[in-house]
Amino acid sequence: MATAGKPIECLAAIAWEAKKPLEVVVAPPQRGEVRVKIVATALCHTDAYTLDGLDPEGEGREWGGKACRATEDVPSATAPLPAQQQQQQQQRGLFPCILGHEAAGVVESVGEGVTSVKPGDHVIPCYQAYCGDCKFCRHPESNLCISGTSTFSEYTVVHEQSVALIRPDAPLDKVCLLGCGVSTGWGAVFNTAKVKPDTTVAVFGLGAVGLAVIEAAKRAGASRIIAVDINPSKFDAARKWGATDCVNPGDHSKPIQQVIVDMTEWGADYTFECIGNVQVMRAALEAAHRGWGQSVVIGVAAAGQEISTRPFQLVTGRQWKGTAFGGYKSRLQVPELVDDYMGGGTLLDDYITHRMPFGDINQAFDLLHSGQTLRTVLTFDA
Amino acid sequence: MATAGKPIECLAAIAWEAKKPLEVVVAPPQRGEVRVKIVATALCHTDAYTLDGLDPEGEGREWGGKACRATEDVPSATAPLPAQQQQQQQQRGLFPCILGHEAAGVVESVGEGVTSVKPGDHVIPCYQAYCGDCKFCRHPESNLCISGTSTFSEYTVVHEQSVALIRPDAPLDKVCLLGCGVSTGWGAVFNTAKVKPDTTVAVFGLGAVGLAVIEAAKRAGASRIIAVDINPSKFDAARKWGATDCVNPGDHSKPIQQVIVDMTEWGADYTFECIGNVQVMRAALEAAHRGWGQSVVIGVAAAGQEISTRPFQLVTGRQWKGTAFGGYKSRLQVPELVDDYMGGGTLLDDYITHRMPFGDINQAFDLLHSGQTLRTVLTFDA
Ligand SMILES: NC(=O)c1ccc[n+]([C@@H]2O[C@H](COP(=O)([O-])OP(=O)(O)OC[C@H]3O[C@@H](n4cnc5c(N)ncnc54)[C@H](O)[C@@H]3O)[C@@H](O)[C@H]2O)c1
Ligand SMILES: NC(=O)c1ccc[n+]([C@@H]2O[C@H](COP(=O)([O-])OP(=O)(O)OC[C@H]3O[C@@H](n4cnc5c(N)ncnc54)[C@H](O)[C@@H]3O)[C@@H](O)[C@H]2O)c1
Ligand SMILES: [Zn+2]
Ligand SMILES: [Zn+2]
Ligand SMILES: [Zn+2]
Ligand SMILES: [Zn+2]
Repeated sequence: MATAGKPIECLAAIAWEAKKPLEVVVAPPQRGEVRVKIVATALCHTDAYTLDGLDPEGEGREWGGKACRATEDVPSATAPLPAQQQQQQQQRGLFPCILGHEAAGVVESVGEGVTSVKPGDHVIPCYQAYCGDCKFCRHPESNLCISGTSTFSEYTVVHEQSVALIRPDAPLDKVCLLGCGVSTGWGAVFNTAKVKPDTTVAVFGLGAVGLAVIEAAKRAGASRIIAVDINPSKFDAARKWGATDCVNPGDHSKPIQQVIVDMTEWGADYTFECIGNVQVMRAALEAAHRGWGQSVVIGVAAAGQEISTRPFQLVTGRQWKGTAFGGYKSRLQVPELVDDYMGGGTLLDDYITHRMPFGDINQAFDLLHSGQTLRTVLTFDA
Repeated sequence: MATAGKPIECLAAIAWEAKKPLEVVVAPPQRGEVRVKIVATALCHTDAYTLDGLDPEGEGREWGGKACRATEDVPSATAPLPAQQQQQQQQRGLFPCILGHEAAGVVESVGEGVTSVKPGDHVIPCYQAYCGDCKFCRHPESNLCISGTSTFSEYTVVHEQSVALIRPDAPLDKVCLLGCGVSTGWGAVFNTAKVKPDTTVAVFGLGAVGLAVIEAAKRAGASRIIAVDINPSKFDAARKWGATDCVNPGDHSKPIQQVIVDMTEWGADYTFECIGNVQVMRAALEAAHRGWGQSVVIGVAAAGQEISTRPFQLVTGRQWKGTAFGGYKSRLQVPELVDDYMGGGTLLDDYITHRMPFGDINQAFDLLHSGQTLRTVLTFDA
């Protein structure tokens, strides 16, 4: 493309400091890097956390470098950034980072040595890299590649190992959702908990992540799916997705874990926390079946918050797990998820409740906070 | 036997109240019950907790009725208990309970309808029952039978479903250890964590339970076994049992989880807490490998204590589990463990560091508290 090798000036929703969007210059890709023109990006709840300055665990090494909130850039127009300001940003650590990490786009140019994608390829940038070669990528039970860590670059530029090449006929303004929340919910069921048929599942929080858990649990053959949310307007969707029971904790005087245990006699075989609330994480564990119940933490809590329970909950057989990007090995498996979608039968389209141009991003955040949206997809001019 | 059908007066180490041993009358077995003459009983750390009044989680329903501390009686001599006092004891709940739950003995008589054992059979009373028929017994991943709960009887009398029939040639004063601690450590490795070959294991606490974990981890093929204790006099045994590294947290200024992570780069594949200390439970979780490390809580903490950690520990792939009696389905599998022992190759004999007559039980407790013993076996006159 004509822009190859040159800096690109563009508008981006960058959190320079919490709540302050600004403009950026996107440098050309270096060795091993890919510059992507984002076509569509959706908002995940983790973005709101970051924008609010709550820093959901800013530990590069632990999370594999980027965290769910991590950055891909969102090119479109305007003014360059003074070099001095660019440098400041690097020094400040967590901020600035460019929000938005459920995205899809087209490769604009590639750096030296990049062989897996070429300009014009359709891709989904993945915040969990997959190098295929490290201890984590080689382990059958982990997707926490460490390669993303140091090669992580802000703006449009992502490491080759963080780019999933997808088929060109997939609609980018839909499959962008596979970059985070929906894949995470599906994978939590299939990879992390490995839900078996004829079991009971309880899902706490009915945003896109929680609904994706419901969708996958139904596909896995769960016979009872209990959906929990403090916002009862979420229940219609939950039922449509496959929930058999809907529970509003506000309707009960007992703690929600006791409500679930009473409904199921001993607890649910699998429980999923899809909110990011440490009290609910505890409730979800304690709502898991005595003897073998598994509870999976998906929600990302604010920094410094801790989960706790009595150890007896574990001694009597409950298991506490967590998942990052649903355990999918990103570059390897996201293209398969796109194929699944294109084959029909997934509910992916239904998670998109709103669409708007990228310029209206602040309105999209308001919608997110209002609880009235599942996913808002923002698109750029072609 | 001549005593069948009659009450038996005997001496027992009963905790009427914390720290007060007394004497009891053991009623004949009712329908479905078995009266056992205990031949040998060892002390497990859980007994000390109970005797100290710390009540390690007195929740009958959760634990399957009896908890590790639970009772089997220890017949031998003397004075009957006034009926009034017997009634008081029932009303007081947790206390009195008869201490000692690593025991072996001979069936003295059986109640109506008991078919699986007969007078003269050699047995190990199991604090986890196995009815073979409830939801938990039928589940391949659980050993927390619920049948024990209501049928639990104090004194010598245990429910048929809590009695493991063992081969008559096994030495009762040795296999009594299979009634709790050693089986628990073995099972935590084989059943709960399912340790794979060529992995790294870290064991916190080197009492009989911790050493049993080491023994089993070695048998499972672990290539590195890191043994942790604040009492370095435990390290010789740990090495003999199979530890490759011994660590005293007191020798390090860093938290012990950081020491283990540094030794292993990302943490141990499996960690086991064999102490009952909630801070160490946290350390054990955080010393587990990023991406897939499993941490198993074996230790029983004092009532009201809680474990905690940052949820990010789970989101980045660690799993927190626990075990009760090592996951063994008691009545079914304890006889197999006895067979294993009789086949040679286990270290069972080596866990017995002291022997004394039952009358010296207070001395045995002193030894337990001194940290100089693994297991003290108390025997009764034949
Ligand atoms: N682990 C990962 O890889 C990963 C990936 C994506 C998202 N996440 C996290 O998953 C969580 C869910 O994301 P989302 O986009 O679906 O969020 P969302 O805001 O759309 O949905 C959250 C839902 O939880 C409900 N809720 C809030 N408090 C509740 C409570 N106390 N009890 C019951 N329900 C309650 C809300 O009403 C809402 O419906 C977030 O924490 C996000 O950061 C994690
Ligand atoms: N879950 C079960 O089914 C089950 C069964 C049996 C025993 N238990 C529990 O397992 C635990 C161990 O039993 P045991 O009989 O081996 O006990 P023990 O007292 O013989 O051994 C405990 C060891 O931990 C060490 N220790 C204490 N504090 C420590 C610390 N902060 N860091 C490192 N090491 C420390 C002690 O020096 C000792 O060597 C107890 O809590 C017991 O109640 C549980
Ligand atoms: Zn996300
Ligand atoms: Zn990798
Ligand atoms: Zn015990
Ligand atoms: Zn049972």
